[in-house]
Amino acid sequence: MTEEPGWKDSELGHPPCSMGCGHKDDKAGLASSQIASFSHQPPSTPASKEVWKKGGRMFSILLAVHLALLACTLVSSGAFEKIAVHDYDVFFLLTVMMLIVIIWIIFYLAGTSRCPGAILGKDSHAGPIWLRGGLILFAIFSLVMDVFKIGYYSSFYSCLSAIKIIYPIVQAIFVVVQTYFLWVSAKDCIHVHLNVTRCGLMLTLTTNLAVWMSAVTDESVHKAHSKLKKNMTEEIFRWLLKVGMRSSSVEECNCNSQICQIFKNGYFWLYPFNIEYSLFASAMVYVMWKNVGRFIDHHSHHIQRLKFKLFRRTFFVGIMLGLIILVSGLGVLILYEVQVNSSTESSKKSQALTMYYIFNIVCLSLMSLVCIGGSIIYRFDKRDMDRHKNPTRTLDVALLMGAALGQYAISYYSIVAIVASTPRDTISALNLTYALLMIAQHTFQNVFIIEGLHRQPPKEDCKHESHQKDLYGLTFVNINAVSLRVPDTGSTLATGAASSMEAMHASDLVRSLTAPKKMNWRRKFLREISMFLLLSNIILWIMPAFGARPQFDNDTELNFYGDSMWPAIVDICLPFGIFYRMHAVASLLEVYIMS
Amino acid sequence: MTEEPGWKDSELGHPPCSMGCGHKDDKAGLASSQIASFSHQPPSTPASKEVWKKGGRMFSILLAVHLALLACTLVSSGAFEKIAVHDYDVFFLLTVMMLIVIIWIIFYLAGTSRCPGAILGKDSHAGPIWLRGGLILFAIFSLVMDVFKIGYYSSFYSCLSAIKIIYPIVQAIFVVVQTYFLWVSAKDCIHVHLNVTRCGLMLTLTTNLAVWMSAVTDESVHKAHSKLKKNMTEEIFRWLLKVGMRSSSVEECNCNSQICQIFKNGYFWLYPFNIEYSLFASAMVYVMWKNVGRFIDHHSHHIQRLKFKLFRRTFFVGIMLGLIILVSGLGVLILYEVQVNSSTESSKKSQALTMYYIFNIVCLSLMSLVCIGGSIIYRFDKRDMDRHKNPTRTLDVALLMGAALGQYAISYYSIVAIVASTPRDTISALNLTYALLMIAQHTFQNVFIIEGLHRQPPKEDCKHESHQKDLYGLTFVNINAVSLRVPDTGSTLATGAASSMEAMHASDLVRSLTAPKKMNWRRKFLREISMFLLLSNIILWIMPAFGARPQFDNDTELNFYGDSMWPAIVDICLPFGIFYRMHAVASLLEVYIMS
Repeated sequence: MTEEPGWKDSELGHPPCSMGCGHKDDKAGLASSQIASFSHQPPSTPASKEVWKKGGRMFSILLAVHLALLACTLVSSGAFEKIAVHDYDVFFLLTVMMLIVIIWIIFYLAGTSRCPGAILGKDSHAGPIWLRGGLILFAIFSLVMDVFKIGYYSSFYSCLSAIKIIYPIVQAIFVVVQTYFLWVSAKDCIHVHLNVTRCGLMLTLTTNLAVWMSAVTDESVHKAHSKLKKNMTEEIFRWLLKVGMRSSSVEECNCNSQICQIFKNGYFWLYPFNIEYSLFASAMVYVMWKNVGRFIDHHSHHIQRLKFKLFRRTFFVGIMLGLIILVSGLGVLILYEVQVNSSTESSKKSQALTMYYIFNIVCLSLMSLVCIGGSIIYRFDKRDMDRHKNPTRTLDVALLMGAALGQYAISYYSIVAIVASTPRDTISALNLTYALLMIAQHTFQNVFIIEGLHRQPPKEDCKHESHQKDLYGLTFVNINAVSLRVPDTGSTLATGAASSMEAMHASDLVRSLTAPKKMNWRRKFLREISMFLLLSNIILWIMPAFGARPQFDNDTELNFYGDSMWPAIVDICLPFGIFYRMHAVASLLEVYIMS
Repeated sequence: MTEEPGWKDSELGHPPCSMGCGHKDDKAGLASSQIASFSHQPPSTPASKEVWKKGGRMFSILLAVHLALLACTLVSSGAFEKIAVHDYDVFFLLTVMMLIVIIWIIFYLAGTSRCPGAILGKDSHAGPIWLRGGLILFAIFSLVMDVFKIGYYSSFYSCLSAIKIIYPIVQAIFVVVQTYFLWVSAKDCIHVHLNVTRCGLMLTLTTNLAVWMSAVTDESVHKAHSKLKKNMTEEIFRWLLKVGMRSSSVEECNCNSQICQIFKNGYFWLYPFNIEYSLFASAMVYVMWKNVGRFIDHHSHHIQRLKFKLFRRTFFVGIMLGLIILVSGLGVLILYEVQVNSSTESSKKSQALTMYYIFNIVCLSLMSLVCIGGSIIYRFDKRDMDRHKNPTRTLDVALLMGAALGQYAISYYSIVAIVASTPRDTISALNLTYALLMIAQHTFQNVFIIEGLHRQPPKEDCKHESHQKDLYGLTFVNINAVSLRVPDTGSTLATGAASSMEAMHASDLVRSLTAPKKMNWRRKFLREISMFLLLSNIILWIMPAFGARPQFDNDTELNFYGDSMWPAIVDICLPFGIFYRMHAVASLLEVYIMS
């Protein structure tokens, strides 16, 4: 993990280079708008460029919104059998979007990023190594999925429209190009071709989201067909027919050969990785978009000094407990899948459901307790809150809060259905407990993660080299901040504060000699907690991502809400719930490293 | 509209009063966190209070999210006949929520706001007179609606559950109390009982949103039953039976008397006002919540000097054109309603649809052109951008962008359906044009309004008294800002800037003597434009709010998406589209006053 030194603010005054690579309008705008606000004189050109900076942002957002809505319309229409929008319409749109994105990325890598002065600084928070590592992992699985897809469709090439084979090929190229692009450029704060870059990034974001929507819909349709209508095979057949056959030669268009079946099952099993890939890429592209034209100040360099030491001074309790949960969860999942899918007996099914719910209730209770414990430890934590600008963290928090809504909604609908339904058996009681614990666990975990993300990293590692610098940097900044806020008494307060700072500084040194033992005890606990939560979230991601759907295997909600409303609720909300788990894993890794 | 002088920042150092009315923890936290950041010493109690400020916010958001989700679950379940959640379950929840809010408001008005030092400053942007005036107007109509509702339900009191009568009574009390509360306190920046106030405000917000959801759902169900199933009267009857009858005496539970019919029709006609009331109240409560514990700086006082002069120096072109559109729109609406509802002939129906679409196409084209013109004028406008913190404006922009998504979604689904459907007649062509123009008009209007809201108000009115102050205030702030950004060359740049500011100031004075004629010409145009758009938006609000549903009268989309998906799309998205129009009216009024 090699980090370039950050873009110092003092370099702001450098003469702008004009090598024919576009104008650095944000820089000019920034400087001029500051000068302009000295007086009430209306500034001329640079101010209108500053206006156009906002215009460029707004334009790219509008582009993304309209494209996303169009894709959403086509994808949701394509999901229904009786609507005359076919999935190859969707594939056509997605292929075109991906091709445009590939062209833009090549333009960016070959043109924009090589301009002199294009990348003046890097955002050290953006694209940390574990996120990029995860991206590459998911990219590899996505490529395998694409190979399976190509293999599956080429089994009956003659009776398919060409786009069904072109789509996975283009998607494979797209995954390779985009992964390279994000690996290389995730931290860039670009300063040339601002508007083209903004639009290109928004197009990339929208394409990823559209691919995500398409994959989620495809998977839901597949699950619905294979689960709810297991006995109606001709229905699937009819659906497959509608979905892409163009000739009437039904016999040869069937997936009968063994290899074809392997391809088909393989690509449906690999869908979760492709889904996560799209979401990871979307998050990284969004942070890049936020960083276009941004100047980095030197505060953002705390984190880069932290190294990822997995097994540093822990009691291994968290990891061991987490691994136990993980392994037993895998066992429960396999048992559950086998019992629910193979047998049609209701007693076997209810046995499997009971096992699934009990495992989840135990797991969620433990996690909730641990999160509460962690939040209490944070309440007594004396570290400073970190309030610097950090688009990555803002996005993390927003995604955690937003994605949790998906699981909340499912749980609330479950609770209402169980409470209002009359036959109250053991399964219903377990389901109710499960739904309530799901709500509680999401809430407590969000509180814990958000508190953790807003802490300053521990200072001991970088105490010696950074102390002197911080003293100057922060003192300078804060005297200004105070004098900004208190114009009348500014000077006196500033001097008073400066002298009190000296006193505090002395007491700080004293404290740092006495306190570390207690601090370490707390931090060890936090590390145990975050490692345990991380592993638990992985198993709670695996279970729904690889096919466990107690929401459909349990009849209560299905009978209460009916065959159309309940699948709609689950199919719309569950992808967010699954994304929540994966995103919580990434955030918990960050909390682990920072504590 | 009496405005108290704003809370000056220099008063930050006043000793906090402790009169037993709670602690001003935000103030203490603010001051201490500034001092704390001078050194790396961990601050003790005040910092944990600062943490708890965020904790209080997060707790109130969590409360709101969970309540809103619960209400959403119940309301959406109650809308379906076959689901065993009845609308009196929903009414019960809403009644309890409203009673809690009423108690909190009384506590706030009698207790919190009377504490010494409770309200140190007022946010002059919050709750402007036209918003509060609109609120009172809608409140009056809501009260009339409640009276109608009480009258309707008391016509067959014997066979209803009591909650159906209690609900409108409690709602009437709620409307009166809340309107008084918002009229008196909309501008408050409260500094005592912070956490209780935050939770109380979030509860009020959630209650308003829940009432809104319930009203929208109720209206959609009513419309669906009276439009789609006009010939199946026994269906409505069965629905009414399910909805709240508790005895089997069907005869006396029927709404046969004339007065009962009047009550019933009356309250459904007045629903749009109640819906808007809830949304207006929500927006104002949200701004109050953002303002809890906020300190106001003196920049926020530009707007209060502006007076609302309706007919100041305009050419009346905008108003006249707008009034023509408004009156002809009312005519079109009445004709449309009569023709569509009374006759079953398809030729009459298609005639009405043609008329409706043509009117809308003309109106939307005009509005789009005018918005483009306005945006071009803004592009040449030399006024400063206003970048001060302003929760009201941030909310306005977010609501405009968010609410437009509703109409966008409907339009995109329409476009896909029309393009993919085979019989392409005149109505389809008109519908397609209408959908495309709807998207264009929303986009252009949003751009125009957002540009308008971000301008500084004109300076000539307050030039004399404010010039001197601004010179000091802004200069002081900006030298600091520059020295913050450019630590090394700060001092030289600051002096340079100060001297260039003198020069600019001189040229400003010269310009202000020569420029006003041209400026006035632009501003007059902007005023014409915003007044025309305002009146056009009113008629585009009235049409869908009072029952025009071309989405259902035109068969294309209904046949394409089916009887369940298309109504779901329209019923979920249209309320946002309607809200967009009303909100655009409020924002355009602000643009008109500021230009």
